[in-house]
Amino acid sequence: MNDLTHDKFLGGRLKLWQPRRGYRAGVDPVLLAATVPDDARTVLDLGCGVGAAGLCLAARVPGLTVTGLELQPLYADLARRNAEETGLAFEIVQGDLTRMPRELRDRQFDHVIANPPYFRRDQSVPARDEAREHAMGEAAPLADWVRAAARRVRDRGQVTMIQRVERLPELLALFDRFLGSVQLLPLIPRPGRDCQLVIVRGRKGGKAAFRLHAGVVMHEAPRHDSDREDYSPAIRAVLRDATALPFP
Amino acid sequence: MNDLTHDKFLGGRLKLWQPRRGYRAGVDPVLLAATVPDDARTVLDLGCGVGAAGLCLAARVPGLTVTGLELQPLYADLARRNAEETGLAFEIVQGDLTRMPRELRDRQFDHVIANPPYFRRDQSVPARDEAREHAMGEAAPLADWVRAAARRVRDRGQVTMIQRVERLPELLALFDRFLGSVQLLPLIPRPGRDCQLVIVRGRKGGKAAFRLHAGVVMHEAPRHDSDREDYSPAIRAVLRDATALPFP
Repeated sequence: MNDLTHDKFLGGRLKLWQPRRGYRAGVDPVLLAATVPDDARTVLDLGCGVGAAGLCLAARVPGLTVTGLELQPLYADLARRNAEETGLAFEIVQGDLTRMPRELRDRQFDHVIANPPYFRRDQSVPARDEAREHAMGEAAPLADWVRAAARRVRDRGQVTMIQRVERLPELLALFDRFLGSVQLLPLIPRPGRDCQLVIVRGRKGGKAAFRLHAGVVMHEAPRHDSDREDYSPAIRAVLRDATALPFP
Repeated sequence: MNDLTHDKFLGGRLKLWQPRRGYRAGVDPVLLAATVPDDARTVLDLGCGVGAAGLCLAARVPGLTVTGLELQPLYADLARRNAEETGLAFEIVQGDLTRMPRELRDRQFDHVIANPPYFRRDQSVPARDEAREHAMGEAAPLADWVRAAARRVRDRGQVTMIQRVERLPELLALFDRFLGSVQLLPLIPRPGRDCQLVIVRGRKGGKAAFRLHAGVVMHEAPRHDSDREDYSPAIRAVLRDATALPFP
């Protein structure tokens, strides 16, 4: 199929179909999946796209089952195809997180992950195709994502999201409101540079004080001065060797 | 006076009187003062205590005048004495930031700094003396501090506060609400350790995206394994040589 690509993840352990244009999974869902503790048995991936985070997680942690919820039929179909072809335990539900589908409404999970769209629709130029706009722009406000995650996670279970740093104040307020024991893991692009991406975790019913962990540095060199890949050892291990990226 | 100590700051450039018991200025106000850009001409130090931040700032930046507001007469009197003895441009007003004294109500400043009390009174054991409780506990909620700072800073001027990391979600939400262009500078105690203290800055009327800077590491060694002082070079320069600690 001409409008799809078949891309390697986790050093080739996974090959996933995704649309050539529109939202395409990069390193972010892989990093998100790497943060989930391996004692979780059931995980919900809200807005799973073609299944990159869910399938990376299922590939890393044997015995874990992942359920993905995806709004857009095109991405949900690709996620199903990717699950079938990889043979991993990944169930896909097509539906809207603001009107939780019946088959998920009574279920709770040990852990919920999400990589919500990075741009607010009201502040960004509309994307050319509707599928891309849904994935890149924002169909549901961030509050709906955190609320839905908090409802679907079991008591004392955790929710982990990855997001652009620009949305951090809003995201922390929402995690404080709907969850507790909030922790922040900054992803630092290069030594001394401003953080671009953050991973935020909360625990349902948690009462611990907020924690800000030292940042994880993504690239070793202080600047990007060649085409050579220069991921830091910890990040390279996550992306190539499917290791975990534990919260400290 | 037996109940006072006379302590060196900035490598001995300043000697400040402070109570032997109760809230005592440590490195935090010195770091806060070091972040103020040296193009500010007028600075308000909300809750100035004995004047550590304000006097460190006045000592570093010639031609700048600092005004301190302090609730407790004991601390306000010591701040006046410290200003007189050091001969620096530091005016002290005794009063309550939630009922802004008349002499400050119509004034605006280029920059407002504050080191609000670190513990919430409703969550901490009461301190033995009332002065300590006022400085360590919380007479006014954090919202009152940010609101008062935002009112007293000129349009496009900046507000900078230092605070325990536990209060960061609340502080970011308040800076987002009353100011704009919020920036966060984490202070990392040792390499790889969780952040304990944060410096948060906002600009009145600012519309820029939130920024999270790479953390400043306070101590060089990965652990505290001797009594030897091991401040990192940047922090040592601030504490001993009165240099600036610029936001990146």
